[in-house]
Amino acid sequence: MPDKVAVLVDENTLEHCLPSLNIPYNLLIQIKSGESQKNLHTCEYIWSELTKAGFTRKSLLVNLGGGVITDMGGFAAATYKRGISFIHVPTTLLSQVDASLGGKLGVDFNRLKNHIGIFQVPDKVIIDVNFLKSLPERELRSGFAEIIKHSLIRSKEQWDWLQTQTFDSINWVELIPQSIAIKNEIVTLDPKENGLRKILNYGHTIGHALETCFLKTSHPLLHGEAIALGMILENKISRKMEMISEKEDRRIEKYIRTIFDLPNLLPNYSDLKKYLNQDKKNDSRGIRFSLLEKEGLGTYDVLIEEKILKEVLK
Amino acid sequence: MPDKVAVLVDENTLEHCLPSLNIPYNLLIQIKSGESQKNLHTCEYIWSELTKAGFTRKSLLVNLGGGVITDMGGFAAATYKRGISFIHVPTTLLSQVDASLGGKLGVDFNRLKNHIGIFQVPDKVIIDVNFLKSLPERELRSGFAEIIKHSLIRSKEQWDWLQTQTFDSINWVELIPQSIAIKNEIVTLDPKENGLRKILNYGHTIGHALETCFLKTSHPLLHGEAIALGMILENKISRKMEMISEKEDRRIEKYIRTIFDLPNLLPNYSDLKKYLNQDKKNDSRGIRFSLLEKEGLGTYDVLIEEKILKEVLK
Repeated sequence: MPDKVAVLVDENTLEHCLPSLNIPYNLLIQIKSGESQKNLHTCEYIWSELTKAGFTRKSLLVNLGGGVITDMGGFAAATYKRGISFIHVPTTLLSQVDASLGGKLGVDFNRLKNHIGIFQVPDKVIIDVNFLKSLPERELRSGFAEIIKHSLIRSKEQWDWLQTQTFDSINWVELIPQSIAIKNEIVTLDPKENGLRKILNYGHTIGHALETCFLKTSHPLLHGEAIALGMILENKISRKMEMISEKEDRRIEKYIRTIFDLPNLLPNYSDLKKYLNQDKKNDSRGIRFSLLEKEGLGTYDVLIEEKILKEVLK
Repeated sequence: MPDKVAVLVDENTLEHCLPSLNIPYNLLIQIKSGESQKNLHTCEYIWSELTKAGFTRKSLLVNLGGGVITDMGGFAAATYKRGISFIHVPTTLLSQVDASLGGKLGVDFNRLKNHIGIFQVPDKVIIDVNFLKSLPERELRSGFAEIIKHSLIRSKEQWDWLQTQTFDSINWVELIPQSIAIKNEIVTLDPKENGLRKILNYGHTIGHALETCFLKTSHPLLHGEAIALGMILENKISRKMEMISEKEDRRIEKYIRTIFDLPNLLPNYSDLKKYLNQDKKNDSRGIRFSLLEKEGLGTYDVLIEEKILKEVLK
C-alpha cells in the first residue's frame, strides 16, 4: 500500500473524469491541458507539489488524462527521488490504445517531441471506455489514427474489418482491446525499441515533424491528425521504394481522408527537414523510416535519400 | 561502436585529466565545477549541446570528473532521447570509490540533494588512480570519508587496518579496489535500495542536511567533510539507541577528527530538520537512519524520535 497518493489532472479530466475515479487520494495536482505544457517546466511544478506534500519513495502518482498527462506524469514519478510508483488511467482514445502502453515516458524539449525521457512501464494501466463519452469528436478521431496504424503495420485482418465499418458505428469496447493487443505484442517482443518496436513509428517520423511545425501556427494539428497525414506521406515514400502498390497507397489514403479533415498545404520543406533530422530513430548515416511493406505488414530502419524526401515533401 | 562520442568535463578535469584520456571524441561539453551546478539548468545545457551536435541514440557520453559530473552526466545521457550509452571516468577519490558505482544518477532540485534522478548503471567505469595526483589534498581527504564509511559498515578488518595507517602513507592502488569491492557487493545484492543498500547511507542522513545548510554559507563543506561530521553525529544517535559502545563512539570520532578539519558550530536545528524531513529513506512514519550496530556492521531503517534528534543536533 502506498503511504500517499496524488492524482495528476488537467482542467478537462478534473471536470469529466476525476468524479468517476475510484481511487482515494491525498493530493490533487492540476496542470493546464495541451502539448505545449509537456515540458520540464511543468515537471518542475509536479516535483515541487510532491515535495511540498511530503511524498516519499513509497508514495504513488496516478496519471489521469491523455498522452501528455501519462507521458509527463510517468516521467515525473519515475525520476522523483529516483522513482516512485505510478499508475496510468488514460482518458482519451489515443492514450488508451497507444500512449499509456509500452513505457515511453518523457517531455518535449526545445520544440523536439519526447526528446527527454526514459523507458519504464507503469505499475498498472486502468482503461475505462466510459471516459471516451466526454471526449470531443475531433479528439476521438485523433486517437483512431493509432488504431488504423496498428492494423496497417501488423494485422491485415483488422485493417480489412475496419474498412467495412463507418466511424460512428464502431464498438469501442470490442475494438480497443484488439488494438491494445497488437501494441502489447510488439512492445513485449522489443521493450527498448532496438528493432521490431520501431514499426510503431510508421507515420510518426513525418507526423512528428508536421505536428511540431503546425504547433507554431494558429491551427495546430492534433497528434492523430499529424500521424494520419504522416502515414499518407510516408506511403508515398514507400511507393517510391517499390514497397506498397499504387492500389494499396490509394486505398489507404482514401480511407484516412474519410476519417480526417487534413490540411492541404505542407509546411516549408526546410522547417520539416530540421525536425526530421532530430528523429530519435536516426543514426549518423541519415533519416530512417518505418514504412509499410504492404497492408498489414510494417518494416523499419529504411534509410531514405534526401532526393526522395524532397519529391514527397516539397 | 558509438556513432559519436562526447566528453563532459569541468574546468578542472579539462586541464588535468582530459589530456591523458585515451578515448577519441567528437564533442567536448564543458560545465563549471561544483555542487551548485548539479541542477536541471545544467542538464538542459548538456541536452542542448548533444542536440545541436546531432547526437543520436547510438552515441556515447563519457563523464570525466567527480560525483557532480558522473551523477549529472549519467542522468543527462540516460534521459537524452530516452537513453544513450554512457561511461564514467571518475577523477576524484570520492567518485572512484563511491559516486561512480551503483547507478545512482541525478541532480539536486530546490536545494534538495539528488532529489530528481533514476537508477541506471553506466556501460563502463574506468578508474585511473593517476588522476588523484592532480587532486587538492582537501578533496582527497573528502573522498577518504567514504572509504572510512565502507569499512565501518561492512569490514571490521579494513577498519582495524585503516587505524594502523597514517593518511599520507596510504597506498591508493591497493586500497581503492578493496573499498570498491565493499560497495559493489552491497549494490549487487540490492541495486534499487529496497533494504541492505541503505547501510551505505550511514553518515549521509545528517551529512546531506549539513552539506545543504553549509552550501548557503561562505564556508561550504565538501561532501566527504559533511559525511565525516554526519558519521560522528549519527554515532551519538547510535549510542542513545544502545547500539555502539561509548568506546567505539570515541575511537571513531577521534580517528575521523585526525583526518578532517570539521566545523565546531552546527547549523540551526530547524534548518537541519527541514532537510532531514526530505531524506529519500523516510516514510510517512518518520525519519529513518542507517546506523552502526558496532564497528564493521551497519544497519538501516532505524526510526528515530524527534527527542533524540534534538538532543544530538541542538
